[in-house]
Amino acid sequence: MAENVDITGKRVDKLSAAPTPHNTPSGTAAPISSAKAPQFMTIEEGDEGLGEKLGSLAYDISSLPASVRRRLSALKGLEGERNKLEVEFQHAILELEKEFSKKYEPLYARRAEIVRGAREPTSEEIEKGEYDVESNGEAEQEKAVETKGIPEFWLTAMKNDLMISEAVTTEDEEALKHLVDIRLSYPEKPGFTLEFEFEKNDFFTNTVLKKTYYYGEQPTRESIFLYDHAEGDKIEWLPNRDLTVRVVTKKQRNKTTKQTRVVKSTVKRDSFFDFFTALQVGEDGEDAEVDENGEDIDDLIARDYEVAENFKERLIPHAVEWFTGEILALENYDNFSDIEEEDEEDEFDDEHVLNLKDKTSADDEDSLVSDDDEVQNNQNPTECRQQ
Amino acid sequence: MAENVDITGKRVDKLSAAPTPHNTPSGTAAPISSAKAPQFMTIEEGDEGLGEKLGSLAYDISSLPASVRRRLSALKGLEGERNKLEVEFQHAILELEKEFSKKYEPLYARRAEIVRGAREPTSEEIEKGEYDVESNGEAEQEKAVETKGIPEFWLTAMKNDLMISEAVTTEDEEALKHLVDIRLSYPEKPGFTLEFEFEKNDFFTNTVLKKTYYYGEQPTRESIFLYDHAEGDKIEWLPNRDLTVRVVTKKQRNKTTKQTRVVKSTVKRDSFFDFFTALQVGEDGEDAEVDENGEDIDDLIARDYEVAENFKERLIPHAVEWFTGEILALENYDNFSDIEEEDEEDEFDDEHVLNLKDKTSADDEDSLVSDDDEVQNNQNPTECRQQ
Repeated sequence: MAENVDITGKRVDKLSAAPTPHNTPSGTAAPISSAKAPQFMTIEEGDEGLGEKLGSLAYDISSLPASVRRRLSALKGLEGERNKLEVEFQHAILELEKEFSKKYEPLYARRAEIVRGAREPTSEEIEKGEYDVESNGEAEQEKAVETKGIPEFWLTAMKNDLMISEAVTTEDEEALKHLVDIRLSYPEKPGFTLEFEFEKNDFFTNTVLKKTYYYGEQPTRESIFLYDHAEGDKIEWLPNRDLTVRVVTKKQRNKTTKQTRVVKSTVKRDSFFDFFTALQVGEDGEDAEVDENGEDIDDLIARDYEVAENFKERLIPHAVEWFTGEILALENYDNFSDIEEEDEEDEFDDEHVLNLKDKTSADDEDSLVSDDDEVQNNQNPTECRQQ
Repeated sequence: MAENVDITGKRVDKLSAAPTPHNTPSGTAAPISSAKAPQFMTIEEGDEGLGEKLGSLAYDISSLPASVRRRLSALKGLEGERNKLEVEFQHAILELEKEFSKKYEPLYARRAEIVRGAREPTSEEIEKGEYDVESNGEAEQEKAVETKGIPEFWLTAMKNDLMISEAVTTEDEEALKHLVDIRLSYPEKPGFTLEFEFEKNDFFTNTVLKKTYYYGEQPTRESIFLYDHAEGDKIEWLPNRDLTVRVVTKKQRNKTTKQTRVVKSTVKRDSFFDFFTALQVGEDGEDAEVDENGEDIDDLIARDYEVAENFKERLIPHAVEWFTGEILALENYDNFSDIEEEDEEDEFDDEHVLNLKDKTSADDEDSLVSDDDEVQNNQNPTECRQQ
């Protein structure tokens, strides 16, 4: 069931497997094939010579009369002409998307002002939303005076999206409380950029963290944009605040002197902020089929792209409804149960930590401890490996 | 796991269930959420009061300070402004689609000429396709002279699409051999029309069979087109040629006179040509939740729309590659195995035929026969019910 997700945008055709009622998961919208959204493409597993097959026939038409083959060849030529037009169409759609993005911008900018408490809404603006805004009493009133903007607005919205919330750890939340805006912009090349703006915080020094997704094209044969690759900003973590690693402390005893010393090392741990780290994929998609945790790299890329799409198509356009959660009433969350079954509790994996021993000097007699006082941010460490 | 597919386009929000790796079927492209394609929407099962909930909060924000609720209400108002712009965006995309459809038209018209043999391709046109067009020998040459156009072009293409071919019976093929063009056009209201052109045949008198899909809109809250309903042409069947029914002959004996008489009745049978019959759905989607065969009407509508999308997005744009089958090499047909497991042989169901007995006069002593000589087109009758 493994499949090749197209990374290079150079090898596969636009058409995915035919959707059928049999492979349509219940509880989701009917899959609609669309030529208008960049897509992940799958090709048949083990179809090594696919590149060579492009443009040649996979099925035998040689038994047909030459006159029919001449007509088919003409049709194939006409289809090539048509595909060139569809490339134009795809570019036109992307331009239209950018054009409307500009129209949304002032509304999003006003939203950002209100969220961060830079400017209060007018009474006219408040009326338009039709939420109940009556005060609940004197005491609450006074407390309200202290509240600046809408605290944890984006974090709360993110936690209501199943796909995104899966990636957010308890420690991540402390940093994501400082997220004051998420914006969409467009790079020069086909693609899109997500911009995460943070207020001053004690985790990292970046004000804005960006991640850009680039579409690839196959102008000769392929007529739609495909996901090509993504690039994320480097996070400038403050000392000992990197949420993507944890520090493990070991005591080592010298065999000769019997003296002990304390050695610290960092091990990888899952974090939402991995989102900004580009996934390690070889040029031809062959070099790294699994990551260091044994996860299929194609699955990781597909999931990463889905998270990005959720920010782009759901959270940014409808942030307030994700914050209040009212949008959840309109969604089908049948699949929650599946997830509960499959996600076993991620427990601390002692074996991986113990492996660190192998790397220490042969002269030392090690006594390895995982000292809770010394381990920073050690909650929810789903995978621990030496870097 | 049953779900409500939106029929009226009036009840549900734009967002479908969050796609996750857990509900992503293996062997298909990663689902990409897109605001650009009309979609089927699902709502939570049993959420009867959903209509009332729209515009009100499903989750409690009343515990928040009034100042925060005022800010949220302003945000909600801004989101409404944004949604109006997205309606504009959707219309602009549809206009762009129509514009490019006009650009494809001359290429498709030329294709149709070649397919039906109205005009031979030029040598320049033949060269562009790069298929092998060398003749295989003298005898074959002579045979080729007799071949007009590309016989069974569209039928062959259709049979290579899994979703479509499932609906085509052996008898349907006899009629579909006369299919000489499939075209896309656009009705005045948002939606699209599929036009199937047939050469003269001895099944029906229509030259063109059309089916139109209409999108619905929810301008106040909803910002994308949703599938609303479909309308198909009435097929003018020639006598005894209706492929959507079969004739059952019964002998009846009068209890008093002991005389026998022969009674013929028609029973429904599956056919691709059911595609042109509008599915019976009540105004509010509640009246008919299952069809006469007990199939979930929402599933049938979703499947029908998928078939239409396959014609629109796959077969019409890339017909020659579907004819040769070369496009299949680029698809992942893992799910073929699933289908083989699930599709039990549809056998003739005697019980349903025997039920006809109940409908005959109480005065008659019936002897029911299903006479093969008298039953017309009786192959592959998957479901038999009295109409």
